Amino acid sequence: MNAITDLSKLCLHTITTKPWDITTSAKKFAAAGIKGITIWRDEVQNKDLAQIRRMLVDLDLQVVSLCRGGFYPSTSAEKRRLAIDDNRYAIDLAHALGAPMMVMVCGADPGQPLNISRAQIAEGIAACLDHAAAAGVKLTIEPLHPMYAAERSAINTLAQANDMAESFKSPWVGIAVDVYHVWWDDNLEEEIKRCGHNGNLSAFHICDWKSPTLDMLNDRGLMGEGCIDLKKIRGWVEAAGFNGFNEVEIFSDIYWKQDQDIFLAKIIEAYKNHV
Amino acid sequence: MNAITDLSKLCLHTITTKPWDITTSAKKFAAAGIKGITIWRDEVQNKDLAQIRRMLVDLDLQVVSLCRGGFYPSTSAEKRRLAIDDNRYAIDLAHALGAPMMVMVCGADPGQPLNISRAQIAEGIAACLDHAAAAGVKLTIEPLHPMYAAERSAINTLAQANDMAESFKSPWVGIAVDVYHVWWDDNLEEEIKRCGHNGNLSAFHICDWKSPTLDMLNDRGLMGEGCIDLKKIRGWVEAAGFNGFNEVEIFSDIYWKQDQDIFLAKIIEAYKNHV
Repeated sequence: MNAITDLSKLCLHTITTKPWDITTSAKKFAAAGIKGITIWRDEVQNKDLAQIRRMLVDLDLQVVSLCRGGFYPSTSAEKRRLAIDDNRYAIDLAHALGAPMMVMVCGADPGQPLNISRAQIAEGIAACLDHAAAAGVKLTIEPLHPMYAAERSAINTLAQANDMAESFKSPWVGIAVDVYHVWWDDNLEEEIKRCGHNGNLSAFHICDWKSPTLDMLNDRGLMGEGCIDLKKIRGWVEAAGFNGFNEVEIFSDIYWKQDQDIFLAKIIEAYKNHV
Repeated sequence: MNAITDLSKLCLHTITTKPWDITTSAKKFAAAGIKGITIWRDEVQNKDLAQIRRMLVDLDLQVVSLCRGGFYPSTSAEKRRLAIDDNRYAIDLAHALGAPMMVMVCGADPGQPLNISRAQIAEGIAACLDHAAAAGVKLTIEPLHPMYAAERSAINTLAQANDMAESFKSPWVGIAVDVYHVWWDDNLEEEIKRCGHNGNLSAFHICDWKSPTLDMLNDRGLMGEGCIDLKKIRGWVEAAGFNGFNEVEIFSDIYWKQDQDIFLAKIIEAYKNHV
């Protein structure tokens, strides 16, 4: 594994600089020399997508993914149908923005067992697959930390994501490995290898796990301020054949309150030193 | 699996009724017909242990365990030595109270990889084992939810706890299965079976996982108010040969603020209906 010497593989998720709108984020990222951008869906809702896409092209920013689809499971059949409609709509959004993939928080319903939620996720993805293929948008399964098993995702380990992705045997299904969700897993190296070997390793998300963590959703750390061995995990991901962007995704009430220009500089510094 | 019809297998952890001191808890539990008690270590610190023990015998309360030992790992060798001393002291406390086991939150140090912390846990348990055997106190490994991996326990699945317990081949090492920590695990049934088969299934802790969960430490739910299928898991535990107490352990800022007599009545009601 090589040390990181430039920003050519750095992608920023727009949620990381949440106080900025999409235009500000894009301009600031490009000015800082960042080459990739992932777009939080809420930030482009009801906006002129063609215009945003032109701006991103002009700024030489590659759209890495649209975030997020998913949330397929429900005890209500009607809600499951609506979720599929919503995912098809999000695939269209991704296509319009030139995003080659849509990252999915797959969902879970606390009113039913996790294996039922997983079966409904498989059904939901299957129902969206033709639409995704036609749009040229990969459906990317992101396994979520087990602390989100009740209502955010019934896919809580990379092994489960691998099982799910492999069941489709499709170039339009992939996996996003986010260190925040999987760092604790003692099967991680082996499952990353498996993921790459089967052609499913589509995205790599980075941040850090702070100790203590003050909030279950919005207290992620900047790379280097927590306990995740990012260099080791990046090594595993690259050994498994991944050569895409290293994508910074930090949900943080603390950082969102700070000056975002200073935060952006900190991110770049942390990226060079700790990834 | 049989439905629960009486309180003969109900144990309450004193942390559940934290606002009560040990004497109040014991008297209230016994008056309610509860037969087992687990004692939070902080509540007997610097008290007359012989007197507490006599009171528990008089009240016909069986001491199920002392909680807690552990916290073995540290990047500092000196702190690891102190942790071993502290565990030996806690074993003496358990012995003085007539507790046949000490439940361990095994620990982790965010400054080092999880596998190093696990190796230090194994060393710590090994260093306490003779002392535990002499005292007749079982050292009980409790796997903790992965959200506690950074600083509370590097043992985050029942599979890891089984590996650890089996490595000792000792009647003085066992495992506590707490539904809060393991409910999300898709290998749970199989690992409970393995745990029982190897004679390591020593304790069964119950509560519920609320959705949403507001606090990572102190927002556990009363049985039935969350998404854990308690009847199913109790079935697995009993099928694996466990016939000990069903131990209620609820850390909850919300319930601790309420009238504890009313809360105790709710626990008994929830135990009869949802376990």
